[in-house]
Amino acid sequence: MAIKVYELAGADGAQRFSPYCWMSVMALAHKGLQFEGIPWRFSEQDAIAFSGQGKVPVVVDGDKTIADSWAIAEYLEATYSDKPSLFNGPGGKAGAQFVTAWAETTLMPIIFPLVVADVHSVLRPEDAAYFRETREKVLGVPLEEACTDKGPQMAKFRAALEPLRAMLAKQPFLGGDAPSYSDYVLFGYFMFARNTYPQDLLEASDAVYAWREKLLDAFGGLARKSKSA
Amino acid sequence: MAIKVYELAGADGAQRFSPYCWMSVMALAHKGLQFEGIPWRFSEQDAIAFSGQGKVPVVVDGDKTIADSWAIAEYLEATYSDKPSLFNGPGGKAGAQFVTAWAETTLMPIIFPLVVADVHSVLRPEDAAYFRETREKVLGVPLEEACTDKGPQMAKFRAALEPLRAMLAKQPFLGGDAPSYSDYVLFGYFMFARNTYPQDLLEASDAVYAWREKLLDAFGGLARKSKSA
Repeated sequence: MAIKVYELAGADGAQRFSPYCWMSVMALAHKGLQFEGIPWRFSEQDAIAFSGQGKVPVVVDGDKTIADSWAIAEYLEATYSDKPSLFNGPGGKAGAQFVTAWAETTLMPIIFPLVVADVHSVLRPEDAAYFRETREKVLGVPLEEACTDKGPQMAKFRAALEPLRAMLAKQPFLGGDAPSYSDYVLFGYFMFARNTYPQDLLEASDAVYAWREKLLDAFGGLARKSKSA
Repeated sequence: MAIKVYELAGADGAQRFSPYCWMSVMALAHKGLQFEGIPWRFSEQDAIAFSGQGKVPVVVDGDKTIADSWAIAEYLEATYSDKPSLFNGPGGKAGAQFVTAWAETTLMPIIFPLVVADVHSVLRPEDAAYFRETREKVLGVPLEEACTDKGPQMAKFRAALEPLRAMLAKQPFLGGDAPSYSDYVLFGYFMFARNTYPQDLLEASDAVYAWREKLLDAFGGLARKSKSA
């Protein structure tokens, strides 16, 4: 039986935009596993109640249920140790923790206000209402006012990518010669933007753009085939 | 014969402050190797001419000479593969590349203007003149004007550490349960500040402070015994 992965989706089930779900989807593909992505919306709490919590990604592998993208990566690495490694050793796992922490504290605070109003617009009405209420509580302003000057915010995002750019000058992927889980962590944020926000955050001349192209093409164009904004 | 490592020093040879030299010194100690640190000043080009380039760290191990901190780490890992690993696998090496790129593009541009005038003050007169000339060319202003408002710059530095802080909430070191080369890379910048700048950049309540304490104590207090500003 194929592994199931519950993925956050818009009104159109093909529009999947959660950075964390993309991390798990790419990790499943990296392991060469058969899996089925199941679209899930904020209001469908009942559908994942069996996982004992209320967020996606949730992976169901036979009688095992795993929630949380990091826990899923650890599970896949431990369970499918004969398949291509996500971390390439314990040092790589520690390194992926740092990349995750960097992305969460540096990239997410820039991307989130930029795309949040557009995320709202791709949701079903009942999910949109929930999303507006919970996110406006965090932001302290209406979604539409979270980022009123998008040009400078996009420039700020590109500037924040400098460590990634410096590293890509030395090796093609964060993982070295081939992508590792660290690459999928960062790629998740780019998929978040791609599938909600109508403008490209990157310039075509950017080394990060070329890196992202390779990941869009990976696994038979798995990510590229997903519905974009 | 003990390994030799040429380290950038102030007028007082015990004052060693290069972040890159500290990375190599900590890497040598991590490997449990016997080594001798040789103080080196900017004006002593002749002393390292044998290395075919003009910067430290330079490591001499028998008939091998290696310059550049990253090359030294790679050399030590490959040559002393039976000793404790610096990278903990190929993924860890790739991760250390990212940590290095992050520090170089994020931390260094904040620390450098902050401490540059104090670095100048610890040098011998002939080195100080060279340092002023070359660094003012890069900065475009006199060393004393590189950072005229130090309080906000220190706050900016502490804010930039957020990814490290987020990660230390999950594991005690960048390397996981024990320090790895990634820890020594970041620690190098803290030693750069410690041994040139009279104020502590960190507050004692910061998780980064506790992490730094552990590294100051590592290897019998190797780093703590060095002459501070």
